[in-house]
Amino acid sequence: MKQFITEGENLPAWAAPISHAVVVDNTCYLSGQLAIGRDGNYVPGTAQEEARHAFQNVAHVLEASGFTLQDMVFVDIAFIDLADLPQVNALFAELFPAGCRPARTIYQAGRLPYDALIKVGGTAVRTARPQA
Amino acid sequence: MKQFITEGENLPAWAAPISHAVVVDNTCYLSGQLAIGRDGNYVPGTAQEEARHAFQNVAHVLEASGFTLQDMVFVDIAFIDLADLPQVNALFAELFPAGCRPARTIYQAGRLPYDALIKVGGTAVRTARPQA
Amino acid sequence: MKQFITEGENLPAWAAPISHAVVVDNTCYLSGQLAIGRDGNYVPGTAQEEARHAFQNVAHVLEASGFTLQDMVFVDIAFIDLADLPQVNALFAELFPAGCRPARTIYQAGRLPYDALIKVGGTAVRTARPQA
Repeated sequence: MKQFITEGENLPAWAAPISHAVVVDNTCYLSGQLAIGRDGNYVPGTAQEEARHAFQNVAHVLEASGFTLQDMVFVDIAFIDLADLPQVNALFAELFPAGCRPARTIYQAGRLPYDALIKVGGTAVRTARPQA
Repeated sequence: MKQFITEGENLPAWAAPISHAVVVDNTCYLSGQLAIGRDGNYVPGTAQEEARHAFQNVAHVLEASGFTLQDMVFVDIAFIDLADLPQVNALFAELFPAGCRPARTIYQAGRLPYDALIKVGGTAVRTARPQA
Repeated sequence: MKQFITEGENLPAWAAPISHAVVVDNTCYLSGQLAIGRDGNYVPGTAQEEARHAFQNVAHVLEASGFTLQDMVFVDIAFIDLADLPQVNALFAELFPAGCRPARTIYQAGRLPYDALIKVGGTAVRTARPQA
């Protein structure tokens, strides 16, 4: 069974012809998220602010998919300036409790859509089906 | 059961010591594809032409693997110039019907093999086993 | 069942608030690895030396996770200079026997942590459960 997640109460509106996420059984494949508001507009900020906003969007997409942030097993973060890593690490440590943090890959990209500073994507797996 | 897809009727020849795809049960892990012809030569074009060519290669690899483009759940596209995004979005909308489009992540890379403009990769999952 | 791999005999020490790998059933999601020694320090070298070191770290993480390098189905390599590809291809051909090589995606990034030259990550799947 596949579910294509394209809309939801808190999901950022976007024009791109893609799904926010695709769920196959207990795995959720996520589109990369930026600091985009629910109105589809980019909200520029510091790298940590943008990372927090992007992770909020990831969390909203996961919720719409029947998952939570704690189900993430792999996180992919693109930076425009890798010097922002310490701030993003601090956020990461806050979002994910020690001992059950996802694997992660990071790199500095040349440019991101909307000239955003941070992009966050990845994969989540739930180990038990949600009660709802 | 794992299948390593290294050759097939329409697959681009390439010298790299990798598989075009690896199939594990119902999941197909794809190598990144460029605008490379069956003879292994790079075919330069506009970003949309290269994207179309790269997606054709992805489709051929999926076919050789027992999958179709419609099985893609996650697509990863690297651009040399992210200004080409609208053209690639138009292609994406053409290739994937609304409501069952894959999740996607995009970014601008510094350079791609053969100095290609576009690279397309990702993951496909079939929800029913093929009859063959 | 999820396992979060954070430490192990040969794993490089690192300060980042992430897991080296997360195992879900028979799939292992790997963090990107660099040429980092067990003491957590970056060991600069040629691209091939760094790639070898990064793959050694990947192999150690896989071992700590109950997998081997031969279980890799997808490899993601970021280069600082894509001109180093032939050397990395030679290593790849050495590490993975013909006929059962992983799928792979490669690109040139703007910068990597520690200003490393090569980052290696990916996904492994074991097709039989380990005896242990």
